[in-house]
Amino acid sequence: MDIFQPNDPNFESRIRISFGKQGVMKTIGANLLKVMPGEVHIDFSFAESLTQQHGYIHAGIITTVVDSACGYAAYTLMPAESEVLSIEYKVNFMSPARGDGFKGIGKVLRPGRNITVCSGDVIAVEKGKEKIVATMLATMKQSA
Amino acid sequence: MDIFQPNDPNFESRIRISFGKQGVMKTIGANLLKVMPGEVHIDFSFAESLTQQHGYIHAGIITTVVDSACGYAAYTLMPAESEVLSIEYKVNFMSPARGDGFKGIGKVLRPGRNITVCSGDVIAVEKGKEKIVATMLATMKQSA
Amino acid sequence: MDIFQPNDPNFESRIRISFGKQGVMKTIGANLLKVMPGEVHIDFSFAESLTQQHGYIHAGIITTVVDSACGYAAYTLMPAESEVLSIEYKVNFMSPARGDGFKGIGKVLRPGRNITVCSGDVIAVEKGKEKIVATMLATMKQSA
Amino acid sequence: MDIFQPNDPNFESRIRISFGKQGVMKTIGANLLKVMPGEVHIDFSFAESLTQQHGYIHAGIITTVVDSACGYAAYTLMPAESEVLSIEYKVNFMSPARGDGFKGIGKVLRPGRNITVCSGDVIAVEKGKEKIVATMLATMKQSA
Repeated sequence: MDIFQPNDPNFESRIRISFGKQGVMKTIGANLLKVMPGEVHIDFSFAESLTQQHGYIHAGIITTVVDSACGYAAYTLMPAESEVLSIEYKVNFMSPARGDGFKGIGKVLRPGRNITVCSGDVIAVEKGKEKIVATMLATMKQSA
Repeated sequence: MDIFQPNDPNFESRIRISFGKQGVMKTIGANLLKVMPGEVHIDFSFAESLTQQHGYIHAGIITTVVDSACGYAAYTLMPAESEVLSIEYKVNFMSPARGDGFKGIGKVLRPGRNITVCSGDVIAVEKGKEKIVATMLATMKQSA
Repeated sequence: MDIFQPNDPNFESRIRISFGKQGVMKTIGANLLKVMPGEVHIDFSFAESLTQQHGYIHAGIITTVVDSACGYAAYTLMPAESEVLSIEYKVNFMSPARGDGFKGIGKVLRPGRNITVCSGDVIAVEKGKEKIVATMLATMKQSA
Repeated sequence: MDIFQPNDPNFESRIRISFGKQGVMKTIGANLLKVMPGEVHIDFSFAESLTQQHGYIHAGIITTVVDSACGYAAYTLMPAESEVLSIEYKVNFMSPARGDGFKGIGKVLRPGRNITVCSGDVIAVEKGKEKIVATMLATMKQSA
């Protein structure tokens, strides 16, 4: 694995400010945990307000959290004045999103001037046991 | 385009009941509009509680709505006692999700005994003008 | 559907020259059929040299042809001095790729200065009957 | 990572026989290297007959090799009498496929009775230096 060197020494505060502006993260009750060069962790707890018809977390909410984790992982390596956008992503759902808490982990696979490729996982914690519920492969774009 | 013949004549009420159990649809303020054989429409209005850092709707919320539209489109053609699950999907984001209202349209491309392939679009309406903001290609699974 | 206006009036000859440089298209025995603004058709015939273990065309060869169709569809709308690259794509396989001949159709969904989103289909013809065997959703990039 | 236990003790010879039936692998000049529980490696050398318009290996050929690697990785864990099919995949292209030789590595992320999720990478070797050129996320199906 490469060790990534951010251009912007203040990448962490830049990302924490941006995360604070995402209204949907408050709605989900998500917390920005680790912000490292090329890697970001976000967690949230189970809530009825986030469920699909079987009482598990909706695939789209799992996606929302790991998309933010991947986007911010890419953003750690972008310049101070840039913005980050999700161009596209694919998610595979590997187990029902059942659990007490969930953690989305986004990592940069390959950074680029314009395009950054990221991978992400969502891990469910149920009675202390961890399980991967979803994996993402995403393309992020630097703009401005 | 094929014309699809549902196995279950009560597919619409089955889907409306299932939609009513999705806690996240209440959180988003989403409405189940049309439920036709192989095609489902869901809409919702802009809300600050669904935004990313630039004030647009978060890509993950766009995904949540079009995933439900695609999943239920597949489910219209499944037997009465079955369940539907999202195996995986890909979404391309084509324009910022800016607008007063948004409509997710899910359609069956190819139904199968086990696996159903669907495509979906999300259309934003801003001052009466429509624009496609995202397109999905998804794989749904019948279980039980 | 939008009607696309190419920047480069010589887009067709530009694409026919580029297609002629793709060594793999000779190996597959593929022909560049239609080249229209935002839409390109490529066909090829069944050959043992392109098969997987069940004697059908390998998914990767299906992908090769529809990727070129999508890439060139995007390239019809790009400037004369540009190059086109596949950033990423997803393909769903809907039926076994069985048939006498196959046609890949690539279409621009949304053109952009940098990024163009395309969709594609591959149609098999078996004893005069057509069937969709695969569908692609792709992201193309203009470079240089 | 899980350690996978194949059901079929003869998984390797089953896969080597199947690989031998893939006409396209002869056309590419591909070799089946390692066949381990849940992981398969396939390599091939640069050839003009596999190129796109810039003289690099065509994205679709990269895809063909890593699709076979992923499919066979899934197949190592399937029963003796089963067949494996690619339902769908996504590939991100991270660098031009330039090099003397190329290796596709397919790994099982999550095995299942019906559906197996795999990831794959293609590594180019140029003057002894390795570089990842593409990464795949794929859904494989057991049939029969």
